[in-house]
Amino acid sequence: MCGMPKVKRGDNLGKLILRAAAVQGLEFERGDVAVVTQSIVSKAEGRAVDLRRVRPSDLAKQLAGQLGKDPREVEVILHELKEIVRLRHVLIARTLHGFVCANAGVDHSNVEKNHVTTLPADPDASAERIRRSIKRASGVDVAVIVSDSHGRPFRVGAVGVAVGVAGMRPLLDLRGKRDLYGKKLTSKVIAVADALAAAGVAAMGEASEGTPVAVIKGATYERGKGRARELVRSRERDLFG
Amino acid sequence: MCGMPKVKRGDNLGKLILRAAAVQGLEFERGDVAVVTQSIVSKAEGRAVDLRRVRPSDLAKQLAGQLGKDPREVEVILHELKEIVRLRHVLIARTLHGFVCANAGVDHSNVEKNHVTTLPADPDASAERIRRSIKRASGVDVAVIVSDSHGRPFRVGAVGVAVGVAGMRPLLDLRGKRDLYGKKLTSKVIAVADALAAAGVAAMGEASEGTPVAVIKGATYERGKGRARELVRSRERDLFG
Repeated sequence: MCGMPKVKRGDNLGKLILRAAAVQGLEFERGDVAVVTQSIVSKAEGRAVDLRRVRPSDLAKQLAGQLGKDPREVEVILHELKEIVRLRHVLIARTLHGFVCANAGVDHSNVEKNHVTTLPADPDASAERIRRSIKRASGVDVAVIVSDSHGRPFRVGAVGVAVGVAGMRPLLDLRGKRDLYGKKLTSKVIAVADALAAAGVAAMGEASEGTPVAVIKGATYERGKGRARELVRSRERDLFG
Repeated sequence: MCGMPKVKRGDNLGKLILRAAAVQGLEFERGDVAVVTQSIVSKAEGRAVDLRRVRPSDLAKQLAGQLGKDPREVEVILHELKEIVRLRHVLIARTLHGFVCANAGVDHSNVEKNHVTTLPADPDASAERIRRSIKRASGVDVAVIVSDSHGRPFRVGAVGVAVGVAGMRPLLDLRGKRDLYGKKLTSKVIAVADALAAAGVAAMGEASEGTPVAVIKGATYERGKGRARELVRSRERDLFG
């Protein structure tokens, strides 16, 4: 979906999304999924940090050298992380929400010069606010996913993942269902919200065209309440860890 | 896409897909992406293994106890792997192709009793055969992705990933492009084929309904030659490793 303006602190994203949709003749229908990229959610919520106001600690300065990063950006990252998972030329961290990603979700793309965005404090609540705002203004029940792009172990390239959801269950549990040959599935839980986030982010395509929202029609998912944190595997249960 | 029959060794999948599409009034258009699940590709290519013909080695028997698996299935897994990545109650392995996944891609769902499927020997070639067969019969140029469902470190739930591609570049490289604020993107490579595989597998939904193919329309990707192996991160370059 194109036609979104640059987002500022305090903007009502639901309204902006509806307006951009109307301009291009896109009508929301019940069950549509709006995938909204983290950067505009963070900016609307005042989570863009002006690096000129950040005083880096000694630790931030030390890590910045190793990472080839601005010490002030590293200082912001240190505030966003709960745990450092890997530290080489890239810093992989567990965020305060529990997500494991590069730089604890701190990003300097698609934000003004000298600024970085941090992830929304409660991305499920962010998604719910957008959902309600769309519902209030249009009467239509949609699901909303706040997406971020994450790199992955073992595979090249980033994919969109869900860091916030509203109006949907993020997981589809097929355990106990039977396969084509009547055998019970024993281990099949599908991360639907991540799959839709991946599709949405791929559809957004090139960042420079300013398409921070994708609308997916005809998706298969379970409506209801859910939290993106259901997608976070606890350290204890991480098979790969 | 529903209406696919049970697939047997030697079946021409391109023809079966076109026939099922015709029954439900689905017309292929240039640029569509057909996501085809690994299990039917493997079955068509004779990669279903009858476990009654497998003699497990001592190593397979020993691991089977630890994994709570059939020793004959473990024997098949051992033949499919290049390297054991993790071994606890689940075996995570690097396949001969280089993919890292549970049980080296050996799967006992959606195949007859007493059988397992192994990944196609060359899934890119499998995808290309399906693509050519669709092109020959319909005249339409589509991209084909052979998908598998993989679990992931750090996150709950499986997502579809591409193990074979044809007619598309699996990665979209945005490095050097500028973001909304004119800043150059330095690290943005999107795994488009994985995103489309994830969307396709999520759309297939419940295995028992027998929908091993999904057709995605209007997807953004670069046409051309590509190999799913481009999606495999080498051990040396794995930031998470």
